[in-house]
Amino acid sequence: MQIPGKQHRMPLPKILTLGFLALILLGGLLLMLPLATQEHHSTPFIDAIFTATSATCITGLTTVNTAAHWSLFGQSVILIMIEIGGLGFMTFSVLPFILLKRRVDLTTRLLIKESLNFEKLADVNSVMKYVIGLSLAIQTLGAALLFIDFYPRYGLARGLFMSVFHAVSAFCNAGFDLFGNSLESQANDPYLILVISALVIAGGLGFLVWRDLLLFKRRRRLSLHTKLALSTTGVLLVGGFILFLLTEDNLAVMAAQVSPGKRLVNTFFLAVTPRTAGITTIPYSQISIAGILLTIVLMFIGGTPGSTAGGIKTTTLGLLTLQSWAVLRGNRDVEFGHRRFSDQNILRALMLVFLCLVLVIVAGLILTITETIPERYGLEYIIFEVISAFSTAGMTMGLTPHLTIIGKLIIMLLMFLGRVGVYTVMFTVLNASHPQKGYRYPAENVMLG
Amino acid sequence: MQIPGKQHRMPLPKILTLGFLALILLGGLLLMLPLATQEHHSTPFIDAIFTATSATCITGLTTVNTAAHWSLFGQSVILIMIEIGGLGFMTFSVLPFILLKRRVDLTTRLLIKESLNFEKLADVNSVMKYVIGLSLAIQTLGAALLFIDFYPRYGLARGLFMSVFHAVSAFCNAGFDLFGNSLESQANDPYLILVISALVIAGGLGFLVWRDLLLFKRRRRLSLHTKLALSTTGVLLVGGFILFLLTEDNLAVMAAQVSPGKRLVNTFFLAVTPRTAGITTIPYSQISIAGILLTIVLMFIGGTPGSTAGGIKTTTLGLLTLQSWAVLRGNRDVEFGHRRFSDQNILRALMLVFLCLVLVIVAGLILTITETIPERYGLEYIIFEVISAFSTAGMTMGLTPHLTIIGKLIIMLLMFLGRVGVYTVMFTVLNASHPQKGYRYPAENVMLG
Ligand SMILES: [K+]
Ligand SMILES: [K+]
Repeated sequence: MQIPGKQHRMPLPKILTLGFLALILLGGLLLMLPLATQEHHSTPFIDAIFTATSATCITGLTTVNTAAHWSLFGQSVILIMIEIGGLGFMTFSVLPFILLKRRVDLTTRLLIKESLNFEKLADVNSVMKYVIGLSLAIQTLGAALLFIDFYPRYGLARGLFMSVFHAVSAFCNAGFDLFGNSLESQANDPYLILVISALVIAGGLGFLVWRDLLLFKRRRRLSLHTKLALSTTGVLLVGGFILFLLTEDNLAVMAAQVSPGKRLVNTFFLAVTPRTAGITTIPYSQISIAGILLTIVLMFIGGTPGSTAGGIKTTTLGLLTLQSWAVLRGNRDVEFGHRRFSDQNILRALMLVFLCLVLVIVAGLILTITETIPERYGLEYIIFEVISAFSTAGMTMGLTPHLTIIGKLIIMLLMFLGRVGVYTVMFTVLNASHPQKGYRYPAENVMLG
Repeated sequence: MQIPGKQHRMPLPKILTLGFLALILLGGLLLMLPLATQEHHSTPFIDAIFTATSATCITGLTTVNTAAHWSLFGQSVILIMIEIGGLGFMTFSVLPFILLKRRVDLTTRLLIKESLNFEKLADVNSVMKYVIGLSLAIQTLGAALLFIDFYPRYGLARGLFMSVFHAVSAFCNAGFDLFGNSLESQANDPYLILVISALVIAGGLGFLVWRDLLLFKRRRRLSLHTKLALSTTGVLLVGGFILFLLTEDNLAVMAAQVSPGKRLVNTFFLAVTPRTAGITTIPYSQISIAGILLTIVLMFIGGTPGSTAGGIKTTTLGLLTLQSWAVLRGNRDVEFGHRRFSDQNILRALMLVFLCLVLVIVAGLILTITETIPERYGLEYIIFEVISAFSTAGMTMGLTPHLTIIGKLIIMLLMFLGRVGVYTVMFTVLNASHPQKGYRYPAENVMLG
């Protein structure tokens, strides 16, 4: 067995961190060109780089209005960054597993095979091809469905661009839009909302799940990953829908404009979009405080690994829910589908939640000092934006366009950490490659709470 | 090696849960007596039981004003419940370690000895005697110091009762007061605030730490528990003080009434009281939103195990901070004072934080639906109260006196779970004593965030 990292010139976390930094810088510079804006002025560096970070990290928070500020060129740059960001992260998230597979012993290899159903996807190239092929297919289908809606409204050229942009943005869970106020003006168009929902959910499940589902007819079994991801996603979508029906009274706030049936679709979308799509059909200033808290929780959870969604991920939540139940019942093992989760897996999941929590609290504390909260809001105005950035959800209660410079830097850092991964970035920053000591100190326990 | 729990008639978690439930019921019934109130009316069951829960769980949240509502008899009942609650939990928290010690093998026994410095404290009786003796000594000293302040103001009898009540309440981190508005009317009395601070900090460190410190002269070493508890407590007190100086501008809001030097003492007290004393010298409606978030975080952390404080505990935070740093640096082990923490210890700490987080979010979600938030507040109005109850901190932004029936039940449940322990209560509720299976399913990993 070889020492991980020795056989590559540059370790994977470094490639990811530096690669995406370079992409953001390049995108930011392109967006600074006068031809990128409708007014043909140069955009300030901080806003160009903020937009590039938001697009590459497929978040969707913006300090300038995408529809009003950027030209067709600028919007195309954003579109390309979203696509690279979306597909890039989706692929990269499973690379460690693939690279690992070649180096590790037979038992671990079998475990990975069982967990992820990797049989023929033996090398990086074929994974890349598979992901890109399937993703483009789904996005093309989505764009075609949107075109049916957009062609009568916008004609061929504009209709096509609108369809492609929103199919890509929805599938990549990017949260960008060309309507000027997200989908708020489209609340009366359930067809559009449902197509966007389907794209968002598909993107948020990730290609490991699609592959498993496509192969199900032949194989008659789903991997642990797929089972856990689908169960958790299902529970969150249905549970979220029911809770939002309750807390928002089926969006009674919309009553004047929209019929009850259409309000039902909009309420469903309230449960879909926090999983971290970021496109919204109703401004979050009209949502109840219970709905805001629920949205914050759903954003923090996010989608499935190997997808375009952010957050701590459905599998993390699923695993920890099962683990909690087992611990409280006094069971030794967490079982799911006749398998148990390894201690290392559980430890990593918990550590991830803890680190995310600390990061969100520290960022929140800084922003409560630097930013101004409007009279009628409280702490949620800050926490919503912090978690939206870190989960790369991209929804807003209104803070982002009014951010101070420090605020913009913090939100950009959160989007980057949230997308590239806390571990990955810290590995690069701390240059964590020092060899392990040859000895270990004796273990001790301390009393806990 | 024997199977744990088989040699006792009733397992420890059950004794704790049912014992404290019985104590709360008894206290609640006594408080319902007309002679317990100043007006000689019977107090409604829900408020009597709420007060009994708050006193026994040494929280300090109250739906009726302790000074104005209860008679000397009622206040004495509360005082006794605080003392039993405080000393009871302090002792009970180490009982599992002591009972474990007799049953386990030599290696584990040596580990416990190293960790907690248990050498002569071999049995339950001597631990009880030690805790009660030392606690009463500190409280007596505290009461004497308070009497110096209270005698000139209140005379002998009333001064004595005031001294004893507030010394007990402060040491037990109970948060009850007889001034009617916590210590708000005493903001100009730095002597009082500093004596209370000393009692709060002493109570929050717990008897394992005191014992270690008392034996230090002879032994010249501190246990891992004490080192970790003292370091974390020190960092939180000093760090909290500096941050509150910053966010509250040394309580400029108080300028009219209090000199800058005295404001400094009050700012220091802002850092002391969330660790979970609950006595306050300034209403939290006057604190900045950053200060509120900081207070919420400090309450959630709380004090040290084996003490009268609540929260996830200093040792949990200390361990997880060290662990996070190690993980981010790519180290295998978490080291502190030439010891490493066991994986089980780390797992338990993380699991605790996760469970507390889930509980607080679920409770918060229910309360955002059932309770009414005043115009000028946001989500923090609910979250502050939920975490205050669950950490048994007892500070309030004003919600508790206005709680609905459902709200009161949720806050009571949080105080009980927070004090008796989520694990302990769930063990009893779920009757978790079923034997382990003879086989284990194969382990698998799932991808995480
Ligand atoms: K997004
Ligand atoms: K308290």
